[in-house]
Amino acid sequence: MEIINLDHLSANPLLPEVQEAMIEAIKENYGNPSSQHKIGDRAAEALDRGRESVTTLINAAVPKEVVFTSSGTESVNHALKGVAFAKADKGKHIVTSNIEHNAVLRSLRRLKMLDYLVTSVPVDEFGRINPDDVAKAIKDDTILVSIMHSNNEIGTIQPIEEIARITRERKVLFHTDAVDSVGVVPIDVQKLGVDLLSFASNTFYGPTGIGGLYVRRGTSVWPLLDGGVQENNKRAGTENLIGIIGMGVAADLAGRQMESRIANARDLRDSLIRRLPDYIDEYIINGHPEHRLPQLVSVSIKYIEGESVVLMLDEEDIAVSTRSACAAGALQASHVLLSIGREFADAQGTMVITFGVDNTEEHITRFLTAMKEAVTTLRDISPLYTARVAQA
Amino acid sequence: MEIINLDHLSANPLLPEVQEAMIEAIKENYGNPSSQHKIGDRAAEALDRGRESVTTLINAAVPKEVVFTSSGTESVNHALKGVAFAKADKGKHIVTSNIEHNAVLRSLRRLKMLDYLVTSVPVDEFGRINPDDVAKAIKDDTILVSIMHSNNEIGTIQPIEEIARITRERKVLFHTDAVDSVGVVPIDVQKLGVDLLSFASNTFYGPTGIGGLYVRRGTSVWPLLDGGVQENNKRAGTENLIGIIGMGVAADLAGRQMESRIANARDLRDSLIRRLPDYIDEYIINGHPEHRLPQLVSVSIKYIEGESVVLMLDEEDIAVSTRSACAAGALQASHVLLSIGREFADAQGTMVITFGVDNTEEHITRFLTAMKEAVTTLRDISPLYTARVAQA
Repeated sequence: MEIINLDHLSANPLLPEVQEAMIEAIKENYGNPSSQHKIGDRAAEALDRGRESVTTLINAAVPKEVVFTSSGTESVNHALKGVAFAKADKGKHIVTSNIEHNAVLRSLRRLKMLDYLVTSVPVDEFGRINPDDVAKAIKDDTILVSIMHSNNEIGTIQPIEEIARITRERKVLFHTDAVDSVGVVPIDVQKLGVDLLSFASNTFYGPTGIGGLYVRRGTSVWPLLDGGVQENNKRAGTENLIGIIGMGVAADLAGRQMESRIANARDLRDSLIRRLPDYIDEYIINGHPEHRLPQLVSVSIKYIEGESVVLMLDEEDIAVSTRSACAAGALQASHVLLSIGREFADAQGTMVITFGVDNTEEHITRFLTAMKEAVTTLRDISPLYTARVAQA
Repeated sequence: MEIINLDHLSANPLLPEVQEAMIEAIKENYGNPSSQHKIGDRAAEALDRGRESVTTLINAAVPKEVVFTSSGTESVNHALKGVAFAKADKGKHIVTSNIEHNAVLRSLRRLKMLDYLVTSVPVDEFGRINPDDVAKAIKDDTILVSIMHSNNEIGTIQPIEEIARITRERKVLFHTDAVDSVGVVPIDVQKLGVDLLSFASNTFYGPTGIGGLYVRRGTSVWPLLDGGVQENNKRAGTENLIGIIGMGVAADLAGRQMESRIANARDLRDSLIRRLPDYIDEYIINGHPEHRLPQLVSVSIKYIEGESVVLMLDEEDIAVSTRSACAAGALQASHVLLSIGREFADAQGTMVITFGVDNTEEHITRFLTAMKEAVTTLRDISPLYTARVAQA
């Protein structure tokens, strides 16, 4: 039976064109781009093509500013730890926000173990940062600001341009975790004005195991992986060429189809939000009403456990998520939802629906029908819900 | 025209079975192994199968001891930097050898910038380390010994078991860079007695962009990539599942076919060495006559530049290497060849021939014929060679 995927943020399928290019690359059996012979030459050409595609997607000035990594997580680690080590003589203070992805939070926690200091700016009820708070947090020994472009749990998009104006004036490097934005919404590193930007191929229907880090020319960053001279000496290790080829094709398609994908996602999202009251009550839609990802709906449903709904919907062959797959094993309430003022119980009752190019209105109907049943079942056995109903 | 690949160490082709498994995985369109629904479950199963295959290949005690990385280089960086940071309160001294791969050398150079101290033990004329030298180099504040299993330029295999007996007695962690050994020669982490062991999929005809790090249970290592809870909290980032599936199949095949591959490689190597004097004179075969990789021949040819031969053979559709592809962009004489006593000029005149499962005796004939022509042409324009001939 076909599984309805409403959890695209965890796992986008590979587009047919991406599959085709990767299969061709596997059959082609490319060599090592660093070799000095023909087998290496063909590989080096394929590598260049992939880099060109990604360069275009984010509007980097030159392909050399794009460093291929193994994931968005590696990109983030590279940016944060790389700047921290490279700039240690200038200072050890870093500014970030309360709602970053675990890749940022845990990289910074790691740096704290090496005597770095981190200031976290808060967000408002929609999950948005006030650039003034970033300005206030910057001190003389601040070396880096890291603020995500869009949030992977609630979809809120941050005022990156405004923050970049501040970091430039204060001569502090600025990294943005754009893993959930690149390939989904227009991203132009020139316009954003950031120094470093992390992204991942799977966000735009490319393969997992491949990501990228934009490093503006002249930005001093230590490599995370030392060794060979690959990636202009910025990231050692034999390249994941099949992944890069897939990412390149996915980047081309994302650029060309972005407008229609956004329009389609918005239609589905708006429809889901509009129809929701016909199926359940007592819920909150999380995130900013305007500055947000087009394909994501985060909904906190009262008197239920989100994880239980995920499992019950799974029985119906519908895939949704409670939060980011990276945190799925962690038994804590979402720090993002707590930061925007959700209570613990509501945070635990949250589901994230992310639409993709393969979704239809029919999927929404099936999802809403199944969810209504799950929520009703769960509420019937919830003491809190029963008490509340008795009270009313 | 078919290119004869005699540079397998830089780029092994994917075996048909590996191609097939990867293509199937691409078509299958697996999800994210961390997701809590069916799409995630199927992915998690495929991930487990890949890990089982690799666990068997190196004889790890449990699959959890295998951490998937993006390359041998990442594995090495993870092991060295991970132990250095985790053990910093015990000491900052590390012991290594003069002939390690750049992944080790440059990771250690990086650690020196963070006030770590490194002692490098020498090698003999065959590139072999004396375990006594390692014992002498270990001090009270030594936290790690890192000695490669086999050398990627000359093929010499080190006395890892003997060194492991010393590090255990002295309670120092032991990492071995086995990137050029795992899947080529029998590797048993129980027998070797190491705490950490780096390896890469492409060495045994799996894809690039995927590697592994063996971490013995209870060994304390900081992750290189912080973020999600993947790889038992040892390495964050969404998994390169297609790569892992390819690596798993390649590991199964390597285990089953190892004996015949070794026998075949030895035949080709012995034949090349036996026939060489019929084509050229004044050369030295590098590496240990006995303790060495079966498929590698390193030959230092007097009065020529190895790079010129590589380019001339490339014209004839024969791929060979002067040294590791990772160092191909670096304009220095090989530190390995200088360490075993080769003079600078001889080091520059060195070629590395690495056989693979696709090579035949006919390839050796074509290679020797073409190389003879290249060497003759180059020597004719070499002032040193002309002077020597005139003198004789």
